[in-house]
Amino acid sequence: MTGPRRVVVVGADAVGMGAAHQALRTAAKRGESLAVTALEASSHTSYSACGIPYWMAGDVDSGDDLVARTAAEHRDAGIDLRLGTEVVAADLAARTVTTAAGDVLEYDDLVVATGAPAVVPDWARRPDGRTYDGVGVVKTLDDGAAWVSSFAEAGPGAHVVVVGAGYVGVEVAEAALERGFGVTVLTRTRGMAMLEDEMSDLVNTGLVDAGVELVLGAEVTGLEVDGDRVTGVRWDGGTREADLVVVAVGVKPATAFLENAGLDGSGLELTEDGALRPDPHGRVADHVWAAGDCCEVRRRIDDEWVFRPLGTHAAKHARALGDSLAGGDLSFDGMVDTSITRFSSSGVHLEIARTGLSRTDAEAAGLDPLALVTEGTTAAGYMPEAEPIAIWVMADRTTRRLLGVQVVGGRGAGKRIDTAAAVLWAGGSVDDLAWMDLSYAPPFATTWEVLQIAARRVADRL
Amino acid sequence: MTGPRRVVVVGADAVGMGAAHQALRTAAKRGESLAVTALEASSHTSYSACGIPYWMAGDVDSGDDLVARTAAEHRDAGIDLRLGTEVVAADLAARTVTTAAGDVLEYDDLVVATGAPAVVPDWARRPDGRTYDGVGVVKTLDDGAAWVSSFAEAGPGAHVVVVGAGYVGVEVAEAALERGFGVTVLTRTRGMAMLEDEMSDLVNTGLVDAGVELVLGAEVTGLEVDGDRVTGVRWDGGTREADLVVVAVGVKPATAFLENAGLDGSGLELTEDGALRPDPHGRVADHVWAAGDCCEVRRRIDDEWVFRPLGTHAAKHARALGDSLAGGDLSFDGMVDTSITRFSSSGVHLEIARTGLSRTDAEAAGLDPLALVTEGTTAAGYMPEAEPIAIWVMADRTTRRLLGVQVVGGRGAGKRIDTAAAVLWAGGSVDDLAWMDLSYAPPFATTWEVLQIAARRVADRL
Repeated sequence: MTGPRRVVVVGADAVGMGAAHQALRTAAKRGESLAVTALEASSHTSYSACGIPYWMAGDVDSGDDLVARTAAEHRDAGIDLRLGTEVVAADLAARTVTTAAGDVLEYDDLVVATGAPAVVPDWARRPDGRTYDGVGVVKTLDDGAAWVSSFAEAGPGAHVVVVGAGYVGVEVAEAALERGFGVTVLTRTRGMAMLEDEMSDLVNTGLVDAGVELVLGAEVTGLEVDGDRVTGVRWDGGTREADLVVVAVGVKPATAFLENAGLDGSGLELTEDGALRPDPHGRVADHVWAAGDCCEVRRRIDDEWVFRPLGTHAAKHARALGDSLAGGDLSFDGMVDTSITRFSSSGVHLEIARTGLSRTDAEAAGLDPLALVTEGTTAAGYMPEAEPIAIWVMADRTTRRLLGVQVVGGRGAGKRIDTAAAVLWAGGSVDDLAWMDLSYAPPFATTWEVLQIAARRVADRL
Repeated sequence: MTGPRRVVVVGADAVGMGAAHQALRTAAKRGESLAVTALEASSHTSYSACGIPYWMAGDVDSGDDLVARTAAEHRDAGIDLRLGTEVVAADLAARTVTTAAGDVLEYDDLVVATGAPAVVPDWARRPDGRTYDGVGVVKTLDDGAAWVSSFAEAGPGAHVVVVGAGYVGVEVAEAALERGFGVTVLTRTRGMAMLEDEMSDLVNTGLVDAGVELVLGAEVTGLEVDGDRVTGVRWDGGTREADLVVVAVGVKPATAFLENAGLDGSGLELTEDGALRPDPHGRVADHVWAAGDCCEVRRRIDDEWVFRPLGTHAAKHARALGDSLAGGDLSFDGMVDTSITRFSSSGVHLEIARTGLSRTDAEAAGLDPLALVTEGTTAAGYMPEAEPIAIWVMADRTTRRLLGVQVVGGRGAGKRIDTAAAVLWAGGSVDDLAWMDLSYAPPFATTWEVLQIAARRVADRL
């Protein structure tokens, strides 16, 4: 090899570029150089997809605010960034990728950071495959710009139907309420199905209290349309007129370009859903690396691979990948299934967070879980800051190990999940959580922090 | 012994009564019975002393709101509660205590829960030993009632001098500002001396921005008085006219009644400052137990005994004590030196928290600490919720063990300390803190949670 090592990054969003910058930093520290080329199908790079619902709500003024690093910043760092360049095929044996324009690029190392586009069900599409006018997903900056513009055009009294009640569905419901629209949320299962039933019920109640029409167990069967424009949504139990329909039913790894890349014998495998399973250094096969939403992540508690397309895992894995690719040894040692969101509109403010296993996960892992919900307050009961909080704590009867915690409550409730996540990270017991030295002052907690009261109640019953 | 075991509790505030109730619960579970007598010098029981500054500020309407359990509730549980009953002596060999009224009570088990009254320096006292009018401490419900009444009487334009800039000093400064008074804070050392210099400077700046006159390094030398009433404060560098003077210079264990109790050979020892050092079950000698502010607590990180009179340790130790006294095995396995407060008034909102060792502690323990301050935001920078936060992280160069974290920042900053406390509790490394799975969504955190950015910066330099 005569020149510097050639690294081709497919997908130049936050993960790909995070990995690229880290690789360049580590290489520079080691006195080596890399030639990094980054290929991005869209015209955007390094933005916060998680911020889009808040742009839709009006909390964020401009899509530019969501851009963490501009194309110019990447190029200034020496990265050959090519926007509007879709990769359609790869050859792992020949170490090449092929773009939609027919260009073939050779690589010494390939970084797959293609993410996971939002799923668009058939019912949302016109015969020509495009979505009906007024229908869309919430994933890219272009999606965000389209929604901001649709929201501005929709007059007062417009009605928004949100299909899906996961994180994005709940955040978009907030955005639509904040814009003054009527809102219907349809979900095939429950609201926030990543929570246990009793916690998800609290979210459902909050949505309804804020004026959302919430329909649980609704399987969407089709749209009502007028020409190319949506006018309503049909589901197995009813219909609703709609000016706008937001589809938030999940995402799927963008790894189709690898399917005919010569996987046999390459060491690289795709799951049934098309996901990659990189090791802690981001390696998926010789000279092939991956991180972010196109990957599953390892859950430390039960050592299972799960699909959790979240920016925070992605950023950590990208850093480990970039460092390892350049000869470092940083590693991403899995996660404990922590996530958080909020629903805040129309006088309702709910912070919603979870970490660890669900009861179903625990039973699948052969554990013997005991779980309880405890209600309390986020501050001393006599303080104006005190808001209600409900905490679900699950531990194993045999080992007393903490297995999972979920939180739904007012201001100050959500970030408490991090303390539980730290205990799970360390493999600690419910007694650790109950007795450890957490902070107390009246504006912040009860004398026994409510997380600890919740843990103590479980500990007492094990 | 013919009747039930006789337990005498000296001091019937939250700790003593918490221990008593737990002992009764554990005894009941074991099918045993206890005869519990609780002796309390004041007329109050089981209240939150920590809430008093917020009552002074007007956040809490009434002192009754601070009472966790009333005398009637204690008596209903079968406790012989005697208010206005001061214990002046004990005889550990004879197992008796003597009250100020001369009554002698026999015990089988003695629980010392006398707490730590506020220190009143000589300069605050009249020749007859009482404090001058307008001068007082902030410790008991009676203190609180007196301040609420003094604050109400003081006209607009009144000036309050607070002596001491620890937790209570800062909280009282907030209260006085909230009541519309001019405020001077005098401190012998720095503001919030439990923080490292660079963090304490942020608190100083906040106090000054809110309009507080802050005088650092001020040794109070005396008061200006008009008859029995204070009119000003003198210190080594100046004077200030004052309508009210709040003395917040610390507390001291109330263990004088034990000094002549026959300590030699009893196994019971008092530190030079009069503190007790109970074991994890609250035992200080055969048949003698103690918890709360009259005790030091063991800091797990360096295995040192330190005096940290905080309600949250007290409540935990009281529970372990009550359970152990009645034959259970709950234990209070020390703390990691976590504490929190806030300063919020006049457009300034600072959340102030610490956990773990100071640099001085670490050096005294023979460790090789590296510490850095990192600035960031509590939420994604583009969100309206984003507030500045500064985080000091210290780790050991040799072992990479996390040693201490301090936080000063806006809304949402303070409770982040619990995550660091959880890592310290488990003896984790700065890498654990940097890489663990903490929650992220734009209203709550940056993609790399700011605590993790701060930990990563230290990890990179070890």
